[in-house]
Amino acid sequence: MSSMPKEIEIVSIGNELLIGKTLNTNAQWLAKRATSLGLPVRRVTVIGDDVEEIAKTIQEAVHRNPAFIITTGGLGPTFDDKALEGIAQALHSKLTINEEALRMVEEKYVKYAEERGQAKIELTPPRIKMAKLPAEAKPLPNPVGTAPGVAVKEDDVTVFALPGVPSEMKSIFDTSLLPVLKAAAGDQTFFETSLYVTGIMESEMAPTIDKVMHDNPHTYVKSHPIGAEKKPSLELHISTTTEDIEVAKRRVGKTLIQLEELIREKGGKTQISKKERLSTQLE
Amino acid sequence: MSSMPKEIEIVSIGNELLIGKTLNTNAQWLAKRATSLGLPVRRVTVIGDDVEEIAKTIQEAVHRNPAFIITTGGLGPTFDDKALEGIAQALHSKLTINEEALRMVEEKYVKYAEERGQAKIELTPPRIKMAKLPAEAKPLPNPVGTAPGVAVKEDDVTVFALPGVPSEMKSIFDTSLLPVLKAAAGDQTFFETSLYVTGIMESEMAPTIDKVMHDNPHTYVKSHPIGAEKKPSLELHISTTTEDIEVAKRRVGKTLIQLEELIREKGGKTQISKKERLSTQLE
Repeated sequence: MSSMPKEIEIVSIGNELLIGKTLNTNAQWLAKRATSLGLPVRRVTVIGDDVEEIAKTIQEAVHRNPAFIITTGGLGPTFDDKALEGIAQALHSKLTINEEALRMVEEKYVKYAEERGQAKIELTPPRIKMAKLPAEAKPLPNPVGTAPGVAVKEDDVTVFALPGVPSEMKSIFDTSLLPVLKAAAGDQTFFETSLYVTGIMESEMAPTIDKVMHDNPHTYVKSHPIGAEKKPSLELHISTTTEDIEVAKRRVGKTLIQLEELIREKGGKTQISKKERLSTQLE
Repeated sequence: MSSMPKEIEIVSIGNELLIGKTLNTNAQWLAKRATSLGLPVRRVTVIGDDVEEIAKTIQEAVHRNPAFIITTGGLGPTFDDKALEGIAQALHSKLTINEEALRMVEEKYVKYAEERGQAKIELTPPRIKMAKLPAEAKPLPNPVGTAPGVAVKEDDVTVFALPGVPSEMKSIFDTSLLPVLKAAAGDQTFFETSLYVTGIMESEMAPTIDKVMHDNPHTYVKSHPIGAEKKPSLELHISTTTEDIEVAKRRVGKTLIQLEELIREKGGKTQISKKERLSTQLE
């Protein structure tokens, strides 16, 4: 039986994003992965390193009742790493030293000391800070960095807190989040491809897209202008989410054929993208 | 006299952003420009092509009372271009044909027809759609594309709606938004530079950053790890916003000197970035 796909919200934390210093590639990477798994992303919110702002944003997201909220950034040792403080405040919890997290952090510094030929690297307060988690939270091992990721449940919503450093974020995602998200998605599959169109203005395509979407209610067609209206070149992105990959391919195929026919009737030229994306083809 | 800088919120509209197909370079570009003008961006919200979702997001943003809300995406001729419908709903307004906007759209198609050697390009409903604005709104000329931008006021908040195509977004920003934002910012100036540090772990830098920020309450220092903790390399980003550029430079300079001293005491090496950014140096 078909069911509504479970939704994801992404919360990107960091002043560097709000001043335009850093491009939010983390959100795109997460959105692509979640979508490929059949879990649609409903919203991405980018906020600064501010406890109140983080707490408010998490609370707002929890109220929209997604299955998962994934935060990135703010897990490190410095004063401005405030993700966990904000999450704890949102969930009316307190930060306390999590013994499992402390062991993870400690093991890292033992290893770093060995590698650097030092006798010992002290567990100073900034280092212990990375093991201070909301009371009910579970730490997630960080295979490539120091700060553990964090998972904490609030009612039906699971909040995952990941570091902002892309390699660490991706590594924790693949190790700890992927199995959970796959299980939650069940057999949902996202399938997409693109049709490139030249010789027709986007404004001329509009009624055609309307018709094709009406005739194919389970596929979504979105036009992206590549050139300007006067020298038109369009990408038509066609996608569907379903539980059966063969159904997905049939749906997208049928939509493609109808689009191509109608476009040719209007005197346009088409080219099908060689790229298709499936839940099983995670980059 | 010093005053709180006016804030900006960015709302990025488009399913392509939520499925990870498109990287949100528009938000970064706008964030960089706004910050450079001395207008801090408080939040970026990314949502899909859904009228209810757009309306709700705009209402939430209006309630946080920024000076400006800038939306990108959803202004084109197709069914899924829903920005103005969402904004109208948020502001309890209705979409009606705006005569000035209709003239702008019409002129474009007269020009396109000439350029393509056609007698006439009809103003079909999808084309007229681009001239349907919230009742109190003003159209903003689009120098490089077809759909006009839109400006509409709600209480003390001005909402600017820009297209999602980057060249059109940038062009309308420079033509119509820049003068308004500059006037609103007054003499606010954002000044930033970076200090690169090697040989010290981020967790070891944490107390140093705390001390320097305590001694320099008007500058903001944020550490960005470049390497991993075990082979540490850090970027310390130092920034300030003020009304006097000489004050800004003095503040950042003083912070830099103290940071370099303390880092050298700890055995670390530093290198100052050659890039500084000022409100007067818009890229």
